[in-house]
Amino acid sequence: MEPREIRHLIRKGKFKKNTTGLAPGYVQANLVVLPKREAFDFFLFTQRNPKSCPVLDVTDTGNPIPAFLAPDADIRTDLCLYRIYQKGKLTSEVEDITSYWQDDMVAFLLGCSFTFEAALERNGIALRHTRAGKNVAMFITNRPCKAAGIFHGPLVVSMRPLPRKKLVEAVRITSRYPAVHGSPIHIGKPSDLGINDIFKPDFGDPIDILSHEEPVFWACGVTSQAVALQAKIPLMITHAPGYMFISDIKDSYYFIH
Amino acid sequence: MEPREIRHLIRKGKFKKNTTGLAPGYVQANLVVLPKREAFDFFLFTQRNPKSCPVLDVTDTGNPIPAFLAPDADIRTDLCLYRIYQKGKLTSEVEDITSYWQDDMVAFLLGCSFTFEAALERNGIALRHTRAGKNVAMFITNRPCKAAGIFHGPLVVSMRPLPRKKLVEAVRITSRYPAVHGSPIHIGKPSDLGINDIFKPDFGDPIDILSHEEPVFWACGVTSQAVALQAKIPLMITHAPGYMFISDIKDSYYFIH
Repeated sequence: MEPREIRHLIRKGKFKKNTTGLAPGYVQANLVVLPKREAFDFFLFTQRNPKSCPVLDVTDTGNPIPAFLAPDADIRTDLCLYRIYQKGKLTSEVEDITSYWQDDMVAFLLGCSFTFEAALERNGIALRHTRAGKNVAMFITNRPCKAAGIFHGPLVVSMRPLPRKKLVEAVRITSRYPAVHGSPIHIGKPSDLGINDIFKPDFGDPIDILSHEEPVFWACGVTSQAVALQAKIPLMITHAPGYMFISDIKDSYYFIH
Repeated sequence: MEPREIRHLIRKGKFKKNTTGLAPGYVQANLVVLPKREAFDFFLFTQRNPKSCPVLDVTDTGNPIPAFLAPDADIRTDLCLYRIYQKGKLTSEVEDITSYWQDDMVAFLLGCSFTFEAALERNGIALRHTRAGKNVAMFITNRPCKAAGIFHGPLVVSMRPLPRKKLVEAVRITSRYPAVHGSPIHIGKPSDLGINDIFKPDFGDPIDILSHEEPVFWACGVTSQAVALQAKIPLMITHAPGYMFISDIKDSYYFIH
């Protein structure tokens, strides 16, 4: 199915699963919706932290249409599952945010690691967590993001164990996709990032590291949600983990030759 | 001289020339200063039009320090010459904007073609306008930018005549510098862009096109100033043409391998 068809099914409530593996070849995106009052500083935060928060599209104030990523979409209805946060607390998970939408809302759509993971797989670099049907392991690091107004906090990373003989290729391939987190921020020794126990992730599922592998760390989109939550803004809406926005733009659009 | 030394001379009023050719190897930037009220939509405009408006740094509201490009700089004093626009009209040119600065000001620093021009020259592609000590020729096209709030208008381009045998190399080299306008947006026939007389630029100096050359068009930073002027905002401050902000960041930082 094409992205448009999937979005229409979701809008009608006829599709409710997570979006992993759906519409292969098309970019999926993280969603963060904020009132305009906080949106400028959040925008600044993304500009200063492009590896964790690569901006793919920003909607006009009060307009739910992501005109670049999918001009016929409505971000209030076209994701399967949303999370509502009030003053930094998760207050509910809903399938439609129309009733929460306000005239001053701005939606940010941020690049997601699905795009570079697909590129790694296409190039013969298997990812064990996806093959096992697990979430990627994510960790809060000791590296501060660059602050912007009320938004500040540590960088969150995702970790994928890769064979040592694939490390160079993994860096080369992902560096060509700066709009979806780009190259890793670290290879090897987790304690260099302040991670004490690599088998106890802060988010997602744990994964073994085999003797021929090294842990490889990428900046993670969860960073932006974490700093937004910490800022305790009155209302913030995100996608629920794994239930991404499916765009009309192909992965290849963001590949730099 | 290092960028820092040049900025200190400028700050003390001891250097007053344009910055062409200064601090070779370091990034120079366009400056646009706006009140916060208009800054969000302008930020959106840059995000939607990255080839004409590549953002290198955005200051915190009311803070004149461009923390990424030069943490010891002050954008109110460290450029030689500024332009003050009120309601879309140029009202004065000044050497210091401290008296115009307000607590709600936001400064945008945008990539400038000096960086890719240096890369072209390093790679054996001579630019006749710089060798003749002239400004590059700039034209208003018939291509609309993507609008954002009050900001909308046509794309402005700069044109450099290049030998046909150098066209491929010129595209290849400049495409590696997306943060400073990147690859050209058009090669050849000016009328494809709605340009009727290639020898009568809208801004800058005219230049001949020789029989072995084609005109090559790049998105131009003047676009952002043009749309901001058209929006007739109460107060807007820019650098004066040719009097750029000199940063501590090397050109090579923005090169994509």
